[in-house]
Amino acid sequence: MEMRSLNEQTKLEINADRLSADFEALAEIGATVDGGISRLALSNEDLQARAWLASAFEAAGMEVHDDDAGNLSGILQADRPDAQTLLVGSHLDSVPNGGRYDGTIGVLAALECARTIREAGMTLPFNLEVVDFTDEEGCWQSLFGSRALTGTLQQNYSRDADVNSGPFRAALFRAGIRPTDVHCAERDPETIAGYLELHIEQSNSLDQTGVRLGVVTGIVGRITYDVTFYGEASHSGTTRLESRRDALKGAAAFITQAHELIESQYPDGVINCGNVTVEPGAFNIIPSEACVTFECRHTDRDTLRQMSDDLIALAEQVAGGYHLATKAAKVGHMPTARMAGQMVMLIEQAAANLGTETARVNSFAGHDAQILSNFTPTGMIFIPSVDGVSHSPREFSLWEDVINGTEVLLETILLLAERYS
Amino acid sequence: MEMRSLNEQTKLEINADRLSADFEALAEIGATVDGGISRLALSNEDLQARAWLASAFEAAGMEVHDDDAGNLSGILQADRPDAQTLLVGSHLDSVPNGGRYDGTIGVLAALECARTIREAGMTLPFNLEVVDFTDEEGCWQSLFGSRALTGTLQQNYSRDADVNSGPFRAALFRAGIRPTDVHCAERDPETIAGYLELHIEQSNSLDQTGVRLGVVTGIVGRITYDVTFYGEASHSGTTRLESRRDALKGAAAFITQAHELIESQYPDGVINCGNVTVEPGAFNIIPSEACVTFECRHTDRDTLRQMSDDLIALAEQVAGGYHLATKAAKVGHMPTARMAGQMVMLIEQAAANLGTETARVNSFAGHDAQILSNFTPTGMIFIPSVDGVSHSPREFSLWEDVINGTEVLLETILLLAERYS
Repeated sequence: MEMRSLNEQTKLEINADRLSADFEALAEIGATVDGGISRLALSNEDLQARAWLASAFEAAGMEVHDDDAGNLSGILQADRPDAQTLLVGSHLDSVPNGGRYDGTIGVLAALECARTIREAGMTLPFNLEVVDFTDEEGCWQSLFGSRALTGTLQQNYSRDADVNSGPFRAALFRAGIRPTDVHCAERDPETIAGYLELHIEQSNSLDQTGVRLGVVTGIVGRITYDVTFYGEASHSGTTRLESRRDALKGAAAFITQAHELIESQYPDGVINCGNVTVEPGAFNIIPSEACVTFECRHTDRDTLRQMSDDLIALAEQVAGGYHLATKAAKVGHMPTARMAGQMVMLIEQAAANLGTETARVNSFAGHDAQILSNFTPTGMIFIPSVDGVSHSPREFSLWEDVINGTEVLLETILLLAERYS
Repeated sequence: MEMRSLNEQTKLEINADRLSADFEALAEIGATVDGGISRLALSNEDLQARAWLASAFEAAGMEVHDDDAGNLSGILQADRPDAQTLLVGSHLDSVPNGGRYDGTIGVLAALECARTIREAGMTLPFNLEVVDFTDEEGCWQSLFGSRALTGTLQQNYSRDADVNSGPFRAALFRAGIRPTDVHCAERDPETIAGYLELHIEQSNSLDQTGVRLGVVTGIVGRITYDVTFYGEASHSGTTRLESRRDALKGAAAFITQAHELIESQYPDGVINCGNVTVEPGAFNIIPSEACVTFECRHTDRDTLRQMSDDLIALAEQVAGGYHLATKAAKVGHMPTARMAGQMVMLIEQAAANLGTETARVNSFAGHDAQILSNFTPTGMIFIPSVDGVSHSPREFSLWEDVINGTEVLLETILLLAERYS
């Protein structure tokens, strides 16, 4: 009985020292003076990290594979040639001056699981593919690699985003990626058994409650708007208060009230007003235009839509009170994602097998798992982030949580192998 | 008795048709398609308007004088060689797409008064100098000409302001002004008898009350600040509301509360928040910096200082509530100005002589008169602005108010001549 034999083999233990050495090695690549990491996608540092990972795959006896979107994989072949593939991974790229854990921990944990399985002489009923996805953080196009693999890239993916990263096409070429071949990275979902990702939580719900492992059930969707308030430019000294149509006054009231609305009506939702631009922007002219860039996030699709509708209605209402006009332009929509029920239960079972307490949590950050979740059964494991800090040199997770998370990931893979047979 | 003879001569009447023809002629120079004027200081249009004015001075038999700051004068000589000079004027330059009345009416009214006096064969006990001041509107340096004449230019006056007007020095050269000679425009206050200026009100207090003539008692001072709120950039999705230090949230609350503060505590004061700039300005990052540019205006010096102190205190208080730091940088201070008491009463007497009702008013815009007021006894006459609109093609004053204002200006000059003897 294969199920039983695998269950017995879960006495497998990862090599925590090796994992720690890998972590320290990667923390050197793109290290910043204050202990963070700058390893922007397709930068020299990112390419150096990929070279390190390819060598690690080879040293582990895994087959190295680069796809046409730059996703880098190490593959442990299954016990049969026509097997499906279980993807396990995350990303090695970082935001500017980000932390050492975000993404990296997920790739290294997957690598360690594959090595442990191979060293035990075990073969699985699926290919085990450890993957480092390209540009998860969106230096050019967020979730670029996972979108390419799932065939969900936007049509204009090679256009240059409004960032200072230089031409995207040039960066792709420099990394050996032909922009016109990126679509060849698309995989057939029939060939994929599922996707698992371990990641730091980034917020503080686990850290606050003391539960050491989170099982992700949903990933927030995000809607982004530019809302412009239109007033009338006039002389700031001579224009009576009652005849002013001050676009910035309306925008400021909207920013305050939008936060109040979400805090009172959508306690599980998130809002951020990230920018305001003002025209004409002179100290002695009443502002004629003020454009507020905001996003809202929620894990429930319908609630997210209701939130953004309420915010647009609020903008119109505030504008009316200040004799302003508004125009709302939706500039982005990342749908909510649900993790597969069988993966959630499998991770919980794996944690229970190891005596680890779990909590079901939502992710308020985007992840490759949210792209994969519409493509293949997907599960995601969170380990605690101390103080919920991320995208910062102060990002930190306890090493025992890294080890524990990796062990649960390994057990999940083994349980999946059992059930799969 | 000279007083009596002058009083009898106040039967003088201005030539309203000639004034109207002058107004129409100048409205053509720099005319915009929507009925406004673009006659930026030292532009070709401004130089064309000056050429027109110089010709008008010559045609009126006045002595034409260009000073080293480009101020253009037409002089009617006094009855004695060592006489002081009464300055009467305003400016012919405009803001971009401004109105036809602002400044222009004051220069043309002064010209018409001088012509009327000369045609009556009258000589005055002072030289009557009609003056068009350079760059009142601040295309490069606001109130440049009157500052040069009174010796109050800032040391770095020829530096390029943060505007898109091109190099100031090049514009000065093009207009025949040598930047290094500008200081030669300074006059000795002992040689000046006073300054009178007629102007449109720009706000709507006269238009609303139906009083046709305003006697200015004070001109607002203005203090300008950049107040920066400092928070912490962090991930907009994962950072809990209670741990956010959102600089823009603080700035927005400040903008709203600053307006409330001035409206409730300083009903005679004026505030404008003209700009906000946000760092890093991404929709998915909590803003770490938000810089608000604001100005406040008041006619009373001490109240103005108290207003700006209160606003800075408010910024600190708001920042504290949002766990932010602040830095306030004063970027400008234009002191308040008081018109001379004897000039206020003289204008009121002149209006009474003509049966014109007056109201004492403050000016909430800056004028050359505010620079002259610290240099020589200064008086200022306002005529109503319909709906208080200015710096706009919609700027409009009734022609009967222009004529009435010019008649009061003439009567004021004649009364001053009487008292002066």
